[in-house]
Amino acid sequence: MEQIESPPFTSIAIVGLGLIGGSIALGIRERWSGCRVIGVDRRPVLAHALSSGAIDRAVDGLDGVGPVELIVLAAPVRQNVKLLAEAARHASDSTVITDVGGTKRDIVRAAAALPRPGSFVGGHPIGGGEKGGFGFARPDLFHARPWIFTPGAASSSAGLERLFRLVRGLGATPVTLDAEAHDRLMAFLSHLPQLTASALMQIAGSGAAADGLRLAGRGLIDTTRLASSPASVWRDVCAENADAIGEALDQLIQLLASVRADLKKGDAIDSLFDAAGRWRAELMKTQQ
Amino acid sequence: MEQIESPPFTSIAIVGLGLIGGSIALGIRERWSGCRVIGVDRRPVLAHALSSGAIDRAVDGLDGVGPVELIVLAAPVRQNVKLLAEAARHASDSTVITDVGGTKRDIVRAAAALPRPGSFVGGHPIGGGEKGGFGFARPDLFHARPWIFTPGAASSSAGLERLFRLVRGLGATPVTLDAEAHDRLMAFLSHLPQLTASALMQIAGSGAAADGLRLAGRGLIDTTRLASSPASVWRDVCAENADAIGEALDQLIQLLASVRADLKKGDAIDSLFDAAGRWRAELMKTQQ
Repeated sequence: MEQIESPPFTSIAIVGLGLIGGSIALGIRERWSGCRVIGVDRRPVLAHALSSGAIDRAVDGLDGVGPVELIVLAAPVRQNVKLLAEAARHASDSTVITDVGGTKRDIVRAAAALPRPGSFVGGHPIGGGEKGGFGFARPDLFHARPWIFTPGAASSSAGLERLFRLVRGLGATPVTLDAEAHDRLMAFLSHLPQLTASALMQIAGSGAAADGLRLAGRGLIDTTRLASSPASVWRDVCAENADAIGEALDQLIQLLASVRADLKKGDAIDSLFDAAGRWRAELMKTQQ
Repeated sequence: MEQIESPPFTSIAIVGLGLIGGSIALGIRERWSGCRVIGVDRRPVLAHALSSGAIDRAVDGLDGVGPVELIVLAAPVRQNVKLLAEAARHASDSTVITDVGGTKRDIVRAAAALPRPGSFVGGHPIGGGEKGGFGFARPDLFHARPWIFTPGAASSSAGLERLFRLVRGLGATPVTLDAEAHDRLMAFLSHLPQLTASALMQIAGSGAAADGLRLAGRGLIDTTRLASSPASVWRDVCAENADAIGEALDQLIQLLASVRADLKKGDAIDSLFDAAGRWRAELMKTQQ
């Protein structure tokens, strides 16, 4: 452990203290006691964050932040795009700005269009948990998880290098990806599973009714864990990444329709389970 | 604990020592040392079961079992239907026969059509695990889980009562259900989630490719846990319950298609997440 290493940023404003923003604050606090953390959110959330020691100072808008070395936008995706313009107005040339949203093309494009973007690097920590909100934030949320950055025209390599140091300090593994590739990949790895889990929960629930659900096994419970995700995060992701998600949904719908047609054909069912089992084994290999 | 209670059956033959059959053997062994357990399977499995102390005697066919008080059919669904006729020929009038298959209409109908069915009661323990086979069997697999029985024309109430005592001894909660209702309910609670998880894994895997999978989050990992289930179990379930599974799949495909059409409509996404979140909360209430 490099406990005495100096922090990559000595002052950080985090806009949005939900699960991700709150966990970044707690992680920084645990790693670098010398780093000043300013939280921006609504008052009840700020009170919670202050009392739990996650932040040093609480303000209810970017106006009140003052000069900081890093601004992290951790609101829902579309709000981040609006906050970016505001953050850039408050930033000096040396301020680094990043976000933690689940789609990247929109905000990277918005940054490139700003007259004076500071150094903006889009970011996406692959962590998350069953439930959103500061109450579920924890300093080790990103531990051993990838943290994707999507550098664009507005990014500086010095800013990217400092962000790499920051997320390594939070236990994450930084990775870079083109924003377009990020959004397509996440449509398959994150957005499709989320929508599928939600749709499955709705159909299984209404098909079984509340009384029938007591006979559900662990399979349904695991497969629908994501169904408690907050809509507030996902309505923006669906809108911003509709083209890529649509492509992934089309593929899934087509496969389910062919499975439905072949339920009595043992060979077709075998093929589905063989392919799925092979991909599942590949997935688990990446987690070792 | 009622450790000294006499076993509901003093001799039990278990045909098929996979995850379920093996776990029943181990559970009985732990609960009632006085109960004789005879395993029927292929030789390598029998060797493993004997050496681990799960069974007292190993035979490679029902022919060799001799008189027992209970026969448990724990092979894949369609094999159980064939084994039932054989088991009934070997059974005396007092022998109880049950199975552990995931569909119930087929075997309950087959039992009613037998000239001398003994007392057959269809059964379905709601347990299971990520991987099949005796190697993953464990005595507490059924602990605090429902175990559904579907009594039919061939069932005796005395047989059902003894089966209730048996599965309570394994830690399960016995429940009775009509075979038709069971199959429809399981189409929504078990078969649909299984096929959805397998299809999702195939699409996510081929969309992301092996290299992209390293950027998957916990969401995909949990949602596709079932994708490693063995095809051998599921090809029979799909064939035997095709009508009910088809209905469930149609509903899911229709919902996914409407989500796909409404990706940019925030209200539609909100509705999906609201409904799914409510059903998920109902589901978790049943697990407390």
